[in-house]
Amino acid sequence: MSGLKRPLGLAVAQLGPIHLADTRAAVVKRLIALLREAHSRGARLVVFPELALTTFFPRYWMEDDEAIARFFELSMPGPETQPLFDLARELGIGFYLGYAELTGDGRRFNTSVLVDEAGGIVGRYRKIHLPGHADHKPQAPFQHLEKKYFEVGNEGFSVWPTMDTKIGMCICNDRRWPEAFRVMGLQSAEIVALGYNTPSHNIHWNEPTHLRMFHHLLSLQANAYQNALWIAAAAKCGAEDGFHMFGGSAIVAPTGEIVAQAQGEDDEVIFVNADLALGDSFRQNVFNFIKHRRPEHYRLIVDRVGAGEPLAAGELAKLASTFQQEG
Amino acid sequence: MSGLKRPLGLAVAQLGPIHLADTRAAVVKRLIALLREAHSRGARLVVFPELALTTFFPRYWMEDDEAIARFFELSMPGPETQPLFDLARELGIGFYLGYAELTGDGRRFNTSVLVDEAGGIVGRYRKIHLPGHADHKPQAPFQHLEKKYFEVGNEGFSVWPTMDTKIGMCICNDRRWPEAFRVMGLQSAEIVALGYNTPSHNIHWNEPTHLRMFHHLLSLQANAYQNALWIAAAAKCGAEDGFHMFGGSAIVAPTGEIVAQAQGEDDEVIFVNADLALGDSFRQNVFNFIKHRRPEHYRLIVDRVGAGEPLAAGELAKLASTFQQEG
Repeated sequence: MSGLKRPLGLAVAQLGPIHLADTRAAVVKRLIALLREAHSRGARLVVFPELALTTFFPRYWMEDDEAIARFFELSMPGPETQPLFDLARELGIGFYLGYAELTGDGRRFNTSVLVDEAGGIVGRYRKIHLPGHADHKPQAPFQHLEKKYFEVGNEGFSVWPTMDTKIGMCICNDRRWPEAFRVMGLQSAEIVALGYNTPSHNIHWNEPTHLRMFHHLLSLQANAYQNALWIAAAAKCGAEDGFHMFGGSAIVAPTGEIVAQAQGEDDEVIFVNADLALGDSFRQNVFNFIKHRRPEHYRLIVDRVGAGEPLAAGELAKLASTFQQEG
Repeated sequence: MSGLKRPLGLAVAQLGPIHLADTRAAVVKRLIALLREAHSRGARLVVFPELALTTFFPRYWMEDDEAIARFFELSMPGPETQPLFDLARELGIGFYLGYAELTGDGRRFNTSVLVDEAGGIVGRYRKIHLPGHADHKPQAPFQHLEKKYFEVGNEGFSVWPTMDTKIGMCICNDRRWPEAFRVMGLQSAEIVALGYNTPSHNIHWNEPTHLRMFHHLLSLQANAYQNALWIAAAAKCGAEDGFHMFGGSAIVAPTGEIVAQAQGEDDEVIFVNADLALGDSFRQNVFNFIKHRRPEHYRLIVDRVGAGEPLAAGELAKLASTFQQEG
């Protein structure tokens, strides 16, 4: 739109179903094939889904010990994932990978890592907006037990300067929360990588199913536009052992436009030669934060957790007038 | 979707052009005709545009004294607007009206008022996100001098309990800022009323014009969905003395769907029998703020104004751990 282009080959590697019977080795073989395809298109960065190494296990009620033994990774890379890291280093291509993290002291997070072109982990994100529930709902057709198996991420929404750009990460349900993207936008992110597993049906209420894809894309588009950044979003999708999750993997430009979208619900690479400078005009004008933002009037965003009663205008003005902020 | 419906007749009254030569009396006559039409459809609340009484004068460079004399209101209602208030009381219909406010001590705001079914002003909003510039740009085809003629609103984003619901207000450029809607969502707003004047061309850079309508609708849809509220957005549009502004007045449901949209660029009423309960399922599940929000990780939203360097994960975690919040 103005100035010099700064192209970066950006790919999303969508995964079709991973069933309970599928081994880590079989999954990593698929990841490797997708990494090679992305590289052949010119990608410098590939985004894989959330919990990309196993089936979406939070749909099953299990004892924690069983879940840990079957679905969590004690190290990253580990023996099964090392070949993916080796190939990335050999090809000189970075990636985002989601997995279930078990720490040395037994804590569990829904995590993603950012790996640079030298095959080294440069960033780690632990999912903050965990959806679902912690209790067993035997009447439901399936569970959504992220609040049981994981604790809330404790490292915030970071942005990493790497690969000649600045990259943020988040996971699945985070995409519905504009706060997540604003925190990354305020750290000058130019790309946000996001993996997800989203059931096609809502177990909590009778939501029309077509709205679920609409809300997914709407959230990506608005967050990209309002922060003038690229979003690369990778689904795990299709029916895992009969439980259906939607696809819709997409790359969204800083204009809010969907510039690439997956065609189906299987393993698939989508690619865009993304111009990182496309966001510059937005950042310099309509979303020139330093000129236009008014944090003294945003206080409730951090002062309240839940929705409450309206405050009188006088109370809001008093909050704003006592506000300390940087210039 | 679940439970009892709570219908409220919600109308948007779009205005076509108001030229420099048009008198206040002529404009109020048009507002009255639109109010009558909205009432005949069953509306309890009608949303008029921003700066609805005059042409969009920030496009013209003037001395402040001239602007004040021609375009500002010293009282609301004033002599010319009193008939609109009288009719609203007679019909028992509430409305939102935008105008240029001159206070008793000479301060100037881009303001809207919320008038209830008894014809009384129950709320006032002064625009916070002023777009444009304060200096004269003689090379530009027109000016966007909101930062010259108005000061930043000093009363925050309020929500008023009235007409059996809770109503928030904002103006034009505020719709692009998710912070504005979140502050209202955290005060349990069920409807946000919004007026706007949006030039079809961007004087700041060569933005593809089709994107401007897309960004308008995208922002409304995302803010409605992410806060589970109705948005009623009223344009002033068409060519005012040759300067074109886009239409696209819309009513957006808590699902994020556009459920009514203006057809043209003239005076036009759109109407929806809005179910206020439609947002309940979203508020109780995916956007159950008290269960899912994590303000300890949103600190940068108020700690920073402009975009800056990325913080290390350790610094973000430290910010979060020292955070004081309600339970």
